[in-house]
Amino acid sequence: MKAAILGGGVIGAGWAARLVENGVAVSLFDPDPEAERKVGAVLANADRAYAKLTMAARGERAPVAFAASVAEAVAGADIVIEAVPERLDLKRRVYAEAEAAAGEDVLICSSTSGILPSDLQAEMTRPERLLVAHPFNPVYLLPLVEIVPGAKTAADAPERAAALFAGWGMHPLILRREIPAFVADRLMEALWREALWLVKDGIATTGEIDDAIRYGCGLRWAQMGTFQVFDIAGGEQGMRHFMRQFGPALKWPWTKLMDVPEMDEALVETIATQVAEQAEGRDFRELERIRDDNLIGVMQALKFNDWGAGRTLGAYERRLFDRGAEGAKAAGPDFSGPVVTMRRRVPPDWTDYNNHMNEARYLQCFADATDGFARLVGIDAEYMAQGGSIFTVETHIRHLDEVRALEPIYAETQLLEGRGKKMHVFHWLRHESGRLLATGEHLLLHVNLETRASEPFRAPVAEKLAEVAALHGALGTPEGAGRAVGQKPG
Amino acid sequence: MKAAILGGGVIGAGWAARLVENGVAVSLFDPDPEAERKVGAVLANADRAYAKLTMAARGERAPVAFAASVAEAVAGADIVIEAVPERLDLKRRVYAEAEAAAGEDVLICSSTSGILPSDLQAEMTRPERLLVAHPFNPVYLLPLVEIVPGAKTAADAPERAAALFAGWGMHPLILRREIPAFVADRLMEALWREALWLVKDGIATTGEIDDAIRYGCGLRWAQMGTFQVFDIAGGEQGMRHFMRQFGPALKWPWTKLMDVPEMDEALVETIATQVAEQAEGRDFRELERIRDDNLIGVMQALKFNDWGAGRTLGAYERRLFDRGAEGAKAAGPDFSGPVVTMRRRVPPDWTDYNNHMNEARYLQCFADATDGFARLVGIDAEYMAQGGSIFTVETHIRHLDEVRALEPIYAETQLLEGRGKKMHVFHWLRHESGRLLATGEHLLLHVNLETRASEPFRAPVAEKLAEVAALHGALGTPEGAGRAVGQKPG
Repeated sequence: MKAAILGGGVIGAGWAARLVENGVAVSLFDPDPEAERKVGAVLANADRAYAKLTMAARGERAPVAFAASVAEAVAGADIVIEAVPERLDLKRRVYAEAEAAAGEDVLICSSTSGILPSDLQAEMTRPERLLVAHPFNPVYLLPLVEIVPGAKTAADAPERAAALFAGWGMHPLILRREIPAFVADRLMEALWREALWLVKDGIATTGEIDDAIRYGCGLRWAQMGTFQVFDIAGGEQGMRHFMRQFGPALKWPWTKLMDVPEMDEALVETIATQVAEQAEGRDFRELERIRDDNLIGVMQALKFNDWGAGRTLGAYERRLFDRGAEGAKAAGPDFSGPVVTMRRRVPPDWTDYNNHMNEARYLQCFADATDGFARLVGIDAEYMAQGGSIFTVETHIRHLDEVRALEPIYAETQLLEGRGKKMHVFHWLRHESGRLLATGEHLLLHVNLETRASEPFRAPVAEKLAEVAALHGALGTPEGAGRAVGQKPG
Repeated sequence: MKAAILGGGVIGAGWAARLVENGVAVSLFDPDPEAERKVGAVLANADRAYAKLTMAARGERAPVAFAASVAEAVAGADIVIEAVPERLDLKRRVYAEAEAAAGEDVLICSSTSGILPSDLQAEMTRPERLLVAHPFNPVYLLPLVEIVPGAKTAADAPERAAALFAGWGMHPLILRREIPAFVADRLMEALWREALWLVKDGIATTGEIDDAIRYGCGLRWAQMGTFQVFDIAGGEQGMRHFMRQFGPALKWPWTKLMDVPEMDEALVETIATQVAEQAEGRDFRELERIRDDNLIGVMQALKFNDWGAGRTLGAYERRLFDRGAEGAKAAGPDFSGPVVTMRRRVPPDWTDYNNHMNEARYLQCFADATDGFARLVGIDAEYMAQGGSIFTVETHIRHLDEVRALEPIYAETQLLEGRGKKMHVFHWLRHESGRLLATGEHLLLHVNLETRASEPFRAPVAEKLAEVAALHGALGTPEGAGRAVGQKPG
């Protein structure tokens, strides 16, 4: 698949990062002579973020090509994403050029944060293929994308676009009616307007206001919106009670703040000075990385709870796992030697006060390698749904070398024994360079999940294990197998 | 320490939960005959949440007593927290009763979400001790508390209150000027007002609006406020650029939405019906637990990044760890037998698809037990600041039994060898009932953090290890020590 991206600012570059991560080749046009450098910086930050985002192996990243014109970018594209500055005349010119070069059924998606799609499409030859797909910075991490059709947009276009975006790990929100600034920006602007008044009136600094958000309502809003939060706050009596109690307060006494503050130079300076203090000397690239790490952590935390943005991430990750498993199955794993069973970068929160991967995460790697091996011999979700699983009963690890955050690692596995109810495996954990980091030896028992008692492996896994055990038996006993802790070598 | 809490609704009960968790005895008055049941339900939810919130051992929970009057609740209290309904006359009556019974220097903190402290204190005999301490639901989890002094509040009262709240794991935000609704509620109300318009005008449902928040800006606001978010969005040119570009948009064209929507029955019904759909059949207690789990996960994720609400949680947790270590030190660990080196409940995200603690977390427990043992023999933060640490080089685990989320577990440790640069330990992991879950045997080397090479333990740790090794040597070799994986017993 190929996408044309028109405009290489923060939004266009963010789109590019999300698309190439998902295997979509990007052809990008931006007349700025610095575009390639700027886009490169965003792609680098996104690459760093994706290394931590999921536990699954990442796919091959597709390439970004820089086109010399709109027409060149759009030629052969399956989708066009426009992210040029927010000027209606400019956008209309870009659409005219894009339309002439694009295939008939190609959707043209505008990233505008406020202009009505009906206005955007008004002068188009084939307006039915234009719609708004409004993403949020950083586009490569935040799942929300507002999809807004205009009066002339084809009826099936919003669903077609939504399916694509969902496949790239996003949460498409299709709006039924177009209004300026759509929904999310309305809400953000309302809050920002109030915040500007608080600064202008000297009630609070930007840092204090930001703290009032991130220590309070922001934590709530990361997982439930304002309505559900208030619904719960209504307790046993729920939303009706809450609205009757607090509704009147909306009119009193701070309605005076619903004017718009004059955005004069004094206010701009006050705010610019205060936010600079908040940054504590960090430049915006460093703040971006902090923000990205926080967003990843928050979404991963929600993933454990299968909720909101975490559910979106979980579904995305499961697809990556499935794709990996299918790939391995399709390739037909080669059991003539040890097989690769785990591959990832070291997540930063796996490191400890010694600034290297914590010892417990070595076992996490081996547990994942065991799972990876189990899938290769047919102990997969389907098998487990029938009530069989494997429990580790004994583990031996040699921690041989350190490894640091974000370094690429992988595991290889040899089956030492696999019959009856026993599976005895030996793993090597290595740095991508081949450097040996640890070995793990594990005895597992096949368990009936209902009775929690051990029992022999079932077909076809039992047969597969016997086959692999015969092949791997020919490899001999690995160095380090059969050791007790502290035993002298030899 | 003892606190009086006046009012046992969601806010008063939330305060009670936070205080008793931090060892503050609570005397609570609420005339509602159902108060004890309702407060009990909140305390139960909070107990469940605190079991997961930190990795440190929890302290002894202080008791909640139900008083028969304001005077009885306040007698002997070190602080008074008022959380009665938002009516000025009622609050003033409560303060009159409280003042008569309270000690001279006792702070009276109002939980009001909008009434000016100057109005609250206007009729008090000693108004200097009243201030607003506005918390956010759920009070036992959300760190924010706005502290607002009135015109007559004593100059040192805000700092005194802030120190107390910070000790209980909160983030106090002291406002310099009082305005109705303070800062955080202003921001929330502005957003809510806009959201109500969107529902009333049929642009979006409550569920769609909530999704626009929690898949987008809510994730940003959980960790950075609106100003810092926009500062970063300004990129290389920063906030000045951003404000000049987007400031004018505030005036156009959605200022029409700055009226207040009429909160009529039709709007109440529309919203109540839509939020009920969002709940998907869950009652509000279940939604509360989901919310709590999400908040805990989000704050823990931010803790790993030492940022915002996570930094607050981290500081709180470190104090709990320190208190535990001091307690152990003060008690003088008894090395005549194995020593307790780790105690916690199984965090829910430590469980896996088999619905029990993941095998890798067994090593996490043993790593923490090793750290606990290390602290007991003097390998603490101070020792490590001198450049010495311990790295595990070999591990053997027998996984003997399953354990599930939230079950209480602990580890006991015996030193098998401790001399030169070697520390060889054996751990038993047990359920609180005494049931053996696993054993861990670990060989560690003392390492110079600068050279990353091993070297002998330094004084006084070397001497302490020799002393403990002599005592523990007399206990004999534990059953299971010295085993290789799969070795036949005996």
